[in-house]
Amino acid sequence: MLSSMRTQVGIVGAGPAGLLLSHLLHLNGIDSVVLERRSRDYVERRVRAGVLEQGTVNTLIEAGVGERMLGEGLPHSGIELRYGGAGHRIAFEKLVPGRTITVYGQQEVVKDLIAARLAVGGDIRFEVDDVAVHSLEDSPYITFGGERLDCDVIAGCDGFHGVSRPSIPEGVLTAYEREYPFAWLGILARVKPSAEELIYACTERGFALHSMRSPEVSRFYLQVPAEEDPDAWPDERIWAELKARLETVPGFTLATGEIIEKGVTPLRSFVTEPMQYGRLFLAGDASHIVPPTGAKGLNLAVADVRVLSEALTRFYADGSAELLDRYSEICLKRVWRAQHFSWWMTTLLHTFDSDDAYARRLQLSYLDYVTSSEAAATTLAENYVGLPYEALR
Amino acid sequence: MLSSMRTQVGIVGAGPAGLLLSHLLHLNGIDSVVLERRSRDYVERRVRAGVLEQGTVNTLIEAGVGERMLGEGLPHSGIELRYGGAGHRIAFEKLVPGRTITVYGQQEVVKDLIAARLAVGGDIRFEVDDVAVHSLEDSPYITFGGERLDCDVIAGCDGFHGVSRPSIPEGVLTAYEREYPFAWLGILARVKPSAEELIYACTERGFALHSMRSPEVSRFYLQVPAEEDPDAWPDERIWAELKARLETVPGFTLATGEIIEKGVTPLRSFVTEPMQYGRLFLAGDASHIVPPTGAKGLNLAVADVRVLSEALTRFYADGSAELLDRYSEICLKRVWRAQHFSWWMTTLLHTFDSDDAYARRLQLSYLDYVTSSEAAATTLAENYVGLPYEALR
Repeated sequence: MLSSMRTQVGIVGAGPAGLLLSHLLHLNGIDSVVLERRSRDYVERRVRAGVLEQGTVNTLIEAGVGERMLGEGLPHSGIELRYGGAGHRIAFEKLVPGRTITVYGQQEVVKDLIAARLAVGGDIRFEVDDVAVHSLEDSPYITFGGERLDCDVIAGCDGFHGVSRPSIPEGVLTAYEREYPFAWLGILARVKPSAEELIYACTERGFALHSMRSPEVSRFYLQVPAEEDPDAWPDERIWAELKARLETVPGFTLATGEIIEKGVTPLRSFVTEPMQYGRLFLAGDASHIVPPTGAKGLNLAVADVRVLSEALTRFYADGSAELLDRYSEICLKRVWRAQHFSWWMTTLLHTFDSDDAYARRLQLSYLDYVTSSEAAATTLAENYVGLPYEALR
Repeated sequence: MLSSMRTQVGIVGAGPAGLLLSHLLHLNGIDSVVLERRSRDYVERRVRAGVLEQGTVNTLIEAGVGERMLGEGLPHSGIELRYGGAGHRIAFEKLVPGRTITVYGQQEVVKDLIAARLAVGGDIRFEVDDVAVHSLEDSPYITFGGERLDCDVIAGCDGFHGVSRPSIPEGVLTAYEREYPFAWLGILARVKPSAEELIYACTERGFALHSMRSPEVSRFYLQVPAEEDPDAWPDERIWAELKARLETVPGFTLATGEIIEKGVTPLRSFVTEPMQYGRLFLAGDASHIVPPTGAKGLNLAVADVRVLSEALTRFYADGSAELLDRYSEICLKRVWRAQHFSWWMTTLLHTFDSDDAYARRLQLSYLDYVTSSEAAATTLAENYVGLPYEALR
């Protein structure tokens, strides 16, 4: 017999989506329990995204969990597109005044949210086994490690490989999918960043990204073949390739240092519609994946959770399910905008084996246009810093 | 033995490029002879493009051949993108103030230019046989129908299928090419246009364009399979399909009338580099082709010819070949911008058989973005009305 308990919102997954949802619900007087199969240590160290949109930053500040981010995060007011032997800055301060991005690792957001939840007695269960969701149409409950959690609503915040989405009956969801014929080799290195802002480099050797996590830690990405073995990339090869793709403008030298992590991430676009079924609501990667080029994954998860917490707050305040019923519809507008932008930036900057000479020239012409037309640069800038929440509802 | 004559610039082709070049050179005191294998009647009736950029309009006015265009041409300050059951106007007056397009048939421009050349005794030879260009490296000359025309420079304005480009020795030119898996069925109908502005319609049945040539003559295009037989399209089928693709918004009814011309145009992108070899300079379609979606073909030809006439004027004024030597380089910036824009608009608006559900959603998301973001709408508008000449040199 299962030991049994009850909460208002059962949340599967202690990533940024699940934790932020739990925190926002708490601020609105709604109880939740967060169930996570990994350890706290694991989720607090998991290196993922690191570029926060203005709206994400505002959300965290308004929710009272922005203090460390404001101190340690690195606000950037531009990025560089580097190609054809020159760098071209996309100047947010000029193109989208008042909006910037903040470089702050996803795992730092996770740490801040866990600390905030635990400080007020929030219920987060780490290392729980055999999580499963049940009775989604009505009276939903979650089972895990011999326990049963009854709730009004379940939030599936357990990522692309989580249990929530596959628990929805076949035929309910429509999946939209695209795979790219390459992957990213992500590298974390203990070395001062070689530039103050992110550099997106498009070269005939492939794409490279110069980024950072802190003033002492640099983050790099290299376009590599799909399903590349990270072991094919000893440190010397990584630095040589990064230099070949980034040291393409006069006066730029890449600082090297100890590589402390490396891994290969496939590039994939994925959306399920709708994002809800009965009393189960999917948020973040559980419902949609974007290639990392536009830095949209974490930000989309935050946007989903904002909508969901608002809808649940309304639901508990006056019993109105009107906003809950529109959860998918509202979120999917932003999701598809981000899907498109991420695809756009990925195709703009990567080298495709299938490209013929015409396609390559088209790409260069597009890059020239994006870096010379104020309107075109603004399309990049406004998507990169994130379109305002009210613009996509 | 050939009868022999001499001019400064020998021009092959009496389309808009060749005729405008001859006229601009005349205004600068430079002699030319234009050789055309078709009859005057043929070139004056050949229905082609009909959307003139602001820069093209200005060029024709400045050259003193704009009078009839200003009287009969239809200035438009916007176009409509129609999809998903609604129309969305791209408002040039707001997005690119001071710049519009003018709807005026290419054959009308041709008539005006022929009249202007002949009025001052310009030398245009119609229906000349066996045109060939020779000795391009030095002392070039043209032969045709038993005659020889010696000249300082040859301008190849004889279109994609002309003799000029193939006369350049193998290995000199690099060709960049793309074919599209569909064509346009172009229809000319004696009926008042059903809307004041152009309507670009994206539907699951394929693309359709509502355009016009005058207040009494409408011009339509339908996306059809590549190599479609026009005979597969009797009038009733044409009107039924136009209605299915255009009558998708409340209150819009397509007026029908007598179809006076129909024909299938393949969609192709093509560029050769460079655009010059020795004393031969290619202009317009002889050097580059774009799909008609962005209405750039005629406008690019005019832009080429502006550069070439300026370079030749400089050359004859002080013997400096500096600008002539840079002819390709200067023109190709605009050519590639137009190549990209034409590809962009074509892929934004057409239905591709190869599209999966993801691609279709991406297209809808892009259309939503272009019609809701001022920056994105401006990228369409500024390319459609034509980027300023000085911006692309």
